[in-house]
Amino acid sequence: MQETAAAAFVARRNKLAEHLGGQPALLAAGRPRARNYAANRYPFRAESHFLYLVGQPLAGAALLVDGGRSVLFLERPADDDALWHGEVESPEAIRAATGVDEVRWLDALAGAIAGKAIATLPPQEDQTAAFLGEVLGRAVAPRSGARLEGADARLADAMVALRLHHDPAALAEMRDAAAITERAHRAGARALRPGVKEAAVKAAIEAEMTAVEGTPAYGSIVTTHGEVLHAEHAHRTVQEGDLLLVDAGTENRAGWASDVTRVYPASRRFSATQRAIYDLVLAANRKGIEMVRPGVRYRDIHLAAARVMLEGLVHLGVFRGAVDGLIERGAGAVFFPHGVGHLLGLDVHDMEDLGDRAGYAPGRARSKRFGDAYLRLDRDLAPGMCVTIEPGFYQVPAILGGEVAAPFANDLDNGRLEAFRDVRGIRLEDDVLCTDGAPEVLTRAIPIAADDVVHFMS
Amino acid sequence: MQETAAAAFVARRNKLAEHLGGQPALLAAGRPRARNYAANRYPFRAESHFLYLVGQPLAGAALLVDGGRSVLFLERPADDDALWHGEVESPEAIRAATGVDEVRWLDALAGAIAGKAIATLPPQEDQTAAFLGEVLGRAVAPRSGARLEGADARLADAMVALRLHHDPAALAEMRDAAAITERAHRAGARALRPGVKEAAVKAAIEAEMTAVEGTPAYGSIVTTHGEVLHAEHAHRTVQEGDLLLVDAGTENRAGWASDVTRVYPASRRFSATQRAIYDLVLAANRKGIEMVRPGVRYRDIHLAAARVMLEGLVHLGVFRGAVDGLIERGAGAVFFPHGVGHLLGLDVHDMEDLGDRAGYAPGRARSKRFGDAYLRLDRDLAPGMCVTIEPGFYQVPAILGGEVAAPFANDLDNGRLEAFRDVRGIRLEDDVLCTDGAPEVLTRAIPIAADDVVHFMS
Repeated sequence: MQETAAAAFVARRNKLAEHLGGQPALLAAGRPRARNYAANRYPFRAESHFLYLVGQPLAGAALLVDGGRSVLFLERPADDDALWHGEVESPEAIRAATGVDEVRWLDALAGAIAGKAIATLPPQEDQTAAFLGEVLGRAVAPRSGARLEGADARLADAMVALRLHHDPAALAEMRDAAAITERAHRAGARALRPGVKEAAVKAAIEAEMTAVEGTPAYGSIVTTHGEVLHAEHAHRTVQEGDLLLVDAGTENRAGWASDVTRVYPASRRFSATQRAIYDLVLAANRKGIEMVRPGVRYRDIHLAAARVMLEGLVHLGVFRGAVDGLIERGAGAVFFPHGVGHLLGLDVHDMEDLGDRAGYAPGRARSKRFGDAYLRLDRDLAPGMCVTIEPGFYQVPAILGGEVAAPFANDLDNGRLEAFRDVRGIRLEDDVLCTDGAPEVLTRAIPIAADDVVHFMS
Repeated sequence: MQETAAAAFVARRNKLAEHLGGQPALLAAGRPRARNYAANRYPFRAESHFLYLVGQPLAGAALLVDGGRSVLFLERPADDDALWHGEVESPEAIRAATGVDEVRWLDALAGAIAGKAIATLPPQEDQTAAFLGEVLGRAVAPRSGARLEGADARLADAMVALRLHHDPAALAEMRDAAAITERAHRAGARALRPGVKEAAVKAAIEAEMTAVEGTPAYGSIVTTHGEVLHAEHAHRTVQEGDLLLVDAGTENRAGWASDVTRVYPASRRFSATQRAIYDLVLAANRKGIEMVRPGVRYRDIHLAAARVMLEGLVHLGVFRGAVDGLIERGAGAVFFPHGVGHLLGLDVHDMEDLGDRAGYAPGRARSKRFGDAYLRLDRDLAPGMCVTIEPGFYQVPAILGGEVAAPFANDLDNGRLEAFRDVRGIRLEDDVLCTDGAPEVLTRAIPIAADDVVHFMS
């Protein structure tokens, strides 16, 4: 993998400084989180805004962008670091790799910013928030979604403006993440057969990520119960005839994400009913991808995918009646109860740490309606934006037996639905780049047509 | 894997209540930690004390042990949990699996304990500490090693008294973790050859853990630079003649740890110099294991292992002079700068969240001397205690060129040492159970003699 050159980080910081117009900003990398005791830590992952501007997961560090000048403040190495962690990279090497103007020790930070009003963003973890609060002399709220005001809000808007449109260095990283994800899905597809544990397939998938110093970009979903949207467990044994839903994407070594869902038939063939629903979800996926073009409102993609699904379900006889009326009454969410996708970048839901500031254009807000309320993105697309397209069909007992489906008792043909009982949940998800012309599917190397999927498994 | 029966948890809680003599105690499971934004979390791992007494990683839950009665307080499921996470286990099912007297929702906790003085232990994460502080009406310090007083200190002592000596259910889990670790090392050994990345071997190892819903018990160390004690990166390509140090252990599905280090020759044979040092470290490992018997002071095992190493280095001509004098002057730490091991259980450094309360017997404290200061355990051994035995030899530039080695300038034969330059670092680590009779090596299925190791790789 080609490392991102320092020039890319310099350009990003310069753009940020332009947006900020003289307002200085401090961005923390964050700290490792203790797992079961202080020395046993989760693998460290730096805050995404820091990674975007610096490129290196330097635990405890903070970046000061002040006018055209960038200073990186690093934790001073402990005396025994060379024993436990080997030779530490020199400040000069870090300066060269990141292109910052200066590297200093963290204990110089308070003095360097004394008396200045500095903008910052909420980190994910309390100790870092406390540290920022102390050096900035004001309360800094930890954790995603904190309400931002004044200079902090303007900093957040500036970061959104930058990160919404991926630069060539970012796209190179995302293509790398997608390429690793292709190998991961291939390994999983080949490990799948009746009698294996879901966890064994997950292991084959994640090994491809680990082998190139990547990591899952999110908790991999590897489940025969695809109707559980965020199934965290992989404890079941795969049975003959099962569909295995695999929602697994790599975060590559540099921290950039991919996010891909495929559905693999354990017995290497789809039943006629599985195939019918699969092709329907695929049609919705293709419809959504085709619409990823400049100026298209993302919510319209969501609605179009939902319409494709509903038309198909009427065609299959699961729903009765006129599609327009069904849509108006919210029937889309009965079998497709989530949004069609989200932004993708350094975060798998890119910039979700800023709440809906990145996902929703100014003046737009989330729908209150079940299903649509889970739509994480409602912006007009523009070149350089990368989104997922991930329609799905799920038979969720809590929905079908609950108040969401109740108004459709006369529209649903439960006898017909019963014929599709071997379809628990199908989702088909790609990562799609909006360009000046046709959409570019970053994950196109991972087969998606039903016959291609079966071939991929052999 | 056989699940631990509810009776084991009942027995542990009853023992705890006996130790506490009427003092009620509240133990929190902890909460998931955000990774790059709130919804993207690290895999949840419950606090070990909670796991020990409840057996299930119930995020957000808290266990109240009050006299002979145990009540488990659970987070109330959200309305849409059934959609995102599938059907939630019923309180009654959780009551049956854990054997608690009652399961209630968490919002009833404050009322249930109002007016009582309740003991607790510091959790690893700030939100849980804040939650405990609120329900207990007093400050609860987050994070490992917080200073404990009064009832909290007595609770910590009671937990140490219980967890120091493993019951049959605990030992069954630890044997399970060791068995998975054997498969993991085997997979790694077979994946190793010149030209592969360290990360590819690490991937093969961790896949065996993931395949049975386990996870690394700590950051796996898979490195050709064994002299870096906690090498976190695995970015190098393995070269002909390299030794690969693999310090990797499984945490099984129930949360119990194993911790094993082996050293594999990439070219499937040791050079004469590698073999000489390997056999020396092996002799120290065997000496240490042999001493794991009731009544033996653990520090004496550390010193005995260091003596074996030093005698060998004198024999090999690396050190000159009398062993006793060298030991007295601290020469042991020049090539063996860490402790010979630690407690093992639910934590890989068992109960290190309580600081040295578990590792050091009352009245004993850490040495200030370099090397010995890293000894994590100094208790008299007793049946049921499980420890690691992990002597090592390392050529650490920062030590050999620094103030630790300086006093030995006339004792070290640098010309002779130069002959061993193809030995960067070797550590050999087993998990050993103290019994009434001979020590039981839980990790004996993982070959350790040099010839057996080579055979294991094929």
